[in-house]
Amino acid sequence: MTVAFAGERGAFAELAAIEYFGEKVKMAALPEFGDVFRGVARGRYRFGVVPIENSLAGSIHENYDMLLESNLNIVGEVLLRIRHFLIANKGTSRREVKRIFSHPQAFAQCKKFLKRFPHLTVVPVSNTAWAVKKIRNEDLRDAAAIASQQAAADFDMQVLARNIEDTKWNTTRFLVVAKSYKFPSPVTGHAAKRVKSSVVFSTKNIPGALYKCLSVFALRDINLYKIESRPIHGRGFQYLFYLDFEGDARDTVQRNAINHLREITTFYRFLGSYLIDSPRDPRHRGR
Amino acid sequence: MTVAFAGERGAFAELAAIEYFGEKVKMAALPEFGDVFRGVARGRYRFGVVPIENSLAGSIHENYDMLLESNLNIVGEVLLRIRHFLIANKGTSRREVKRIFSHPQAFAQCKKFLKRFPHLTVVPVSNTAWAVKKIRNEDLRDAAAIASQQAAADFDMQVLARNIEDTKWNTTRFLVVAKSYKFPSPVTGHAAKRVKSSVVFSTKNIPGALYKCLSVFALRDINLYKIESRPIHGRGFQYLFYLDFEGDARDTVQRNAINHLREITTFYRFLGSYLIDSPRDPRHRGR
Repeated sequence: MTVAFAGERGAFAELAAIEYFGEKVKMAALPEFGDVFRGVARGRYRFGVVPIENSLAGSIHENYDMLLESNLNIVGEVLLRIRHFLIANKGTSRREVKRIFSHPQAFAQCKKFLKRFPHLTVVPVSNTAWAVKKIRNEDLRDAAAIASQQAAADFDMQVLARNIEDTKWNTTRFLVVAKSYKFPSPVTGHAAKRVKSSVVFSTKNIPGALYKCLSVFALRDINLYKIESRPIHGRGFQYLFYLDFEGDARDTVQRNAINHLREITTFYRFLGSYLIDSPRDPRHRGR
Repeated sequence: MTVAFAGERGAFAELAAIEYFGEKVKMAALPEFGDVFRGVARGRYRFGVVPIENSLAGSIHENYDMLLESNLNIVGEVLLRIRHFLIANKGTSRREVKRIFSHPQAFAQCKKFLKRFPHLTVVPVSNTAWAVKKIRNEDLRDAAAIASQQAAADFDMQVLARNIEDTKWNTTRFLVVAKSYKFPSPVTGHAAKRVKSSVVFSTKNIPGALYKCLSVFALRDINLYKIESRPIHGRGFQYLFYLDFEGDARDTVQRNAINHLREITTFYRFLGSYLIDSPRDPRHRGR
């Protein structure tokens, strides 16, 4: 069983995969998100792990698109708090650092830290873990990278500063995707509170259409977790809606709601039922 | 009257500002989004232009946050189709190009083009327009940049290839923000179809709460344009909702809907009423 993610070893997606599958799982680091979706769809990898939304940067629509195109299912989720570390070769002191390599987004997330060192030259690269690899491979003594703790561990490097990100509310939600996967049996009763289901649909372009769709859930007391509208390419004012709601889609009430929803939508796709990863989970506090 | 945006001259935000205010407006290019919001809030600039969502990358929550914190209003919007150009010094031929400078996101949006030239070295930098400036200032003869047509014009450079982006559905929505600004009088009747209003609110965490909020609009036949939920930092399962709906907030029906919404929400902020920029507008086709 191999789990695919996009990026170098030490990328945040790898951390998310370890969080979900444990340290011992076999991983494949692929160049791009598209390679992950295609590789899993073709059966080369059993699972894929891809980011779907970030608390500061929003939903990654491109990955929603690939999820729809690839016909894969969501089988799990991982909420990962993004922590940045300043990483250098062993023996390099903070004083020796003149250049910092990282992805522009990591720089943007560590602005306060960087402002304290205005003499440093910031060098953007395409990948945080790749920045660490470069510094090690070229044995750079005047350089450091901003990347994950995992990247420091993977490349056996020194951590000069930890948790240098501006805000601790920087969380990325990763999806675990697979060709097909189901809970052994429908999750019902109290345990169903720990399960969510994701669907995507579109409606006729008339006032109140979305309201009707939500009535399907409200009238059955089904909690919603996420709703997001998105204009459909080239279709004027038609929208796709992404919706996450509480419970297993095979539980009776949820199954009724879905059948009802299909009656009143012009397009519908089930994306998956899976265990909720909670930011209130104690393991998130210690991480 | 000065309009502020974040980035170098030639950044896509500058194009959006030109689209909205015309060529002759005075512009201020600031380092970061935060500088735009602060500068407008302190009265140093009359208007600011900031990206709020992209059709592939999703909503930019960080800018929604700054909009709330800064207490500014939305007074307009601009939909800008993102077109990328390959830009070099005058006299440089395509054959001479060995390196391409641009922002990692621009590389990601021009993958198909780049795959046709695997011998090229891709050099990530923090800003597309800055890449053009660098090539000109250092008179690089073996390099090209991926940036906007405006950047080529601003720095008087040569365009080697145009519209090299993978998809023509790559559109960014920019907001025009100001301290306070109102239509001279409420926009009513048929003209109100060309106006939208944006609000943000949160609800009690009970099933059906969002459904009730949408009933405020559905029962009054008010069309919705955008809905997006977002977990509130550190508040477990509480959510903020961003909603765009049809009409001027000072029109009678809309005013009633808003009063009704305030009755049933735990937090509410009005963000603005402004003219809708339509992707079906003919000027978008020619651009």
